[in-house]
Amino acid sequence: MPHAWHLKSRPHGMPTAENFEYKETALPALGDGMVHVRNHYLSVDPYMRGRMNDVKSYVPPFQIGEPLEGGAVGEVVESKSPDFQPGDKVLHMMGWRDEAVIPAQALNKLPAISGIEIKDFLGNLGLTGGTAYWGLLDAAQAKEGDIVFVSAAAGAVGSAVVQIAKAKGMTVIGSAGGADKCAFVKELGADAVIDYKSGTSLVKALGEVAPKGIDVYFDNVGGEHLDAALAHGRKDARFAICGMIDGYNSGEPTSLRYIMRVIAMRMMLKGFIYTDYLPRNAEFFADMGQLVATGKVKSRETVMEGLEKTPDAFLGLFSGANTGKMLVKL
Amino acid sequence: MPHAWHLKSRPHGMPTAENFEYKETALPALGDGMVHVRNHYLSVDPYMRGRMNDVKSYVPPFQIGEPLEGGAVGEVVESKSPDFQPGDKVLHMMGWRDEAVIPAQALNKLPAISGIEIKDFLGNLGLTGGTAYWGLLDAAQAKEGDIVFVSAAAGAVGSAVVQIAKAKGMTVIGSAGGADKCAFVKELGADAVIDYKSGTSLVKALGEVAPKGIDVYFDNVGGEHLDAALAHGRKDARFAICGMIDGYNSGEPTSLRYIMRVIAMRMMLKGFIYTDYLPRNAEFFADMGQLVATGKVKSRETVMEGLEKTPDAFLGLFSGANTGKMLVKL
Repeated sequence: MPHAWHLKSRPHGMPTAENFEYKETALPALGDGMVHVRNHYLSVDPYMRGRMNDVKSYVPPFQIGEPLEGGAVGEVVESKSPDFQPGDKVLHMMGWRDEAVIPAQALNKLPAISGIEIKDFLGNLGLTGGTAYWGLLDAAQAKEGDIVFVSAAAGAVGSAVVQIAKAKGMTVIGSAGGADKCAFVKELGADAVIDYKSGTSLVKALGEVAPKGIDVYFDNVGGEHLDAALAHGRKDARFAICGMIDGYNSGEPTSLRYIMRVIAMRMMLKGFIYTDYLPRNAEFFADMGQLVATGKVKSRETVMEGLEKTPDAFLGLFSGANTGKMLVKL
Repeated sequence: MPHAWHLKSRPHGMPTAENFEYKETALPALGDGMVHVRNHYLSVDPYMRGRMNDVKSYVPPFQIGEPLEGGAVGEVVESKSPDFQPGDKVLHMMGWRDEAVIPAQALNKLPAISGIEIKDFLGNLGLTGGTAYWGLLDAAQAKEGDIVFVSAAAGAVGSAVVQIAKAKGMTVIGSAGGADKCAFVKELGADAVIDYKSGTSLVKALGEVAPKGIDVYFDNVGGEHLDAALAHGRKDARFAICGMIDGYNSGEPTSLRYIMRVIAMRMMLKGFIYTDYLPRNAEFFADMGQLVATGKVKSRETVMEGLEKTPDAFLGLFSGANTGKMLVKL
């Protein structure tokens, strides 16, 4: 019998295991145009925290009593669509479960590319890599020679940003929590790394490694990180605002001491969403596919095994349990 | 004997009369290439508060014991430059004094335009109007049909923003403090006005007058105003960050509850400085000159009389003493 994780209750602040319920799900009969898929990998991502709230956003909220959703890759088991055959590898949004019956139009067939595994389409060639790529190069208009600061640089998106920026000839400063993660960010090629758990102020630490200031900030964290970037942004600095994981659970307002510098330094802050760039996927696959294939952008994953581990994997995003992309392997 | 206001001490927080000293100044001998000018109007502007701090910014700090500076218009009394004749009207930065000897290259000769007074070059055709014009139309990329929110809409820059936006076919919501100023903003053509001194939350008040949200925010205030704009920015909203008068004196960090919405709504915040647009002055005079000449953008001034009133005029900017542009007439 297939199983799926359901939303049991909405969290106030930090989500806990209590918010999730593991249940059997009966698959509907396979109607015309429908495809039965078995999932191989599930993605858990910080943006899902937003969908646990009953708030209208760029994706609709999860509903209590219903299965959760998210990126997943798997294999077609049975198909009543002429477009899909058993054995086809597919990407879709029916994650948090082992099997699903999905309309053909909600499935993306994955191309077979030498050296690319299907889990890469949840990572560097999917939401994670696409977010890094478009945020850095389009939202922040980063270019060769820029000094780039990336927060949560050991995370899924952050580690892709570090590598893309280095591949494009930028100087990169990453922040990460703890010595192991900082070492990982260095390995990725970062020119300098700030340990945000070291106890020194981020404003001071960033000033030390970027005495001339920064041209670009890729924000995954918000809060103090954003304020430090504002403190050191130089003329015409551009910030890609991708995520603010610091604030997702706290409910506290963000306190910014240096926001006024946006005026004197003519800074720009730009929020962006990966899915807006899907129409440019061909461009993305061409450039990023090259970077991945030549090993300039490597994937690093933290993989938990078994569907029952999915909430742990998700909750781990907020406690820093992952280095690189967090995945669940079924 | 000419007089000038000197910086006596640097303020901590709100400046006071104690920070200024009125003193006689001996003018230097009129060397070659120098021009002796008698000022007719002095401009006082919120940005001057920044120059009172000993902090490097886009303009250098005022020096203790030295005369203050600022925009001024006046008339040439005597000239040792072939480019200027007695009687010429000029714009320059040697404000806060009645007379000055100024290098010819630091003077701008004012054209005689029908219906334009020389004080307009400190207002709608100068820093004030230029800041409104470029912030709205370039930094925020505002266009016909946009819903525009302007804070401090009864102020010098704000009242120009309201009128330019209306002249360009936008819907305009202004905020101002108190019934008189709100009535003034309505008179300027605003579609709705929020009295920020009325005690209701700005987030709530803005939601009521802009139920569909806002496309553009022109920020003169920062703080709660910025947060309310973040709360109601709709998809692809653009913010021109011009000033944050709320924070100039308080020294308190800005607390933003809605900053995370920049991501979901793909908002952009852009700081800008008027002087960056000086190379486009011809374009500005052509378009804005037309708006002023046809009465679509009217100037409103609060004029204090006499050089000795200059610090009062300046300090009045922070207590809301002005409606429209604050000037000192000599």
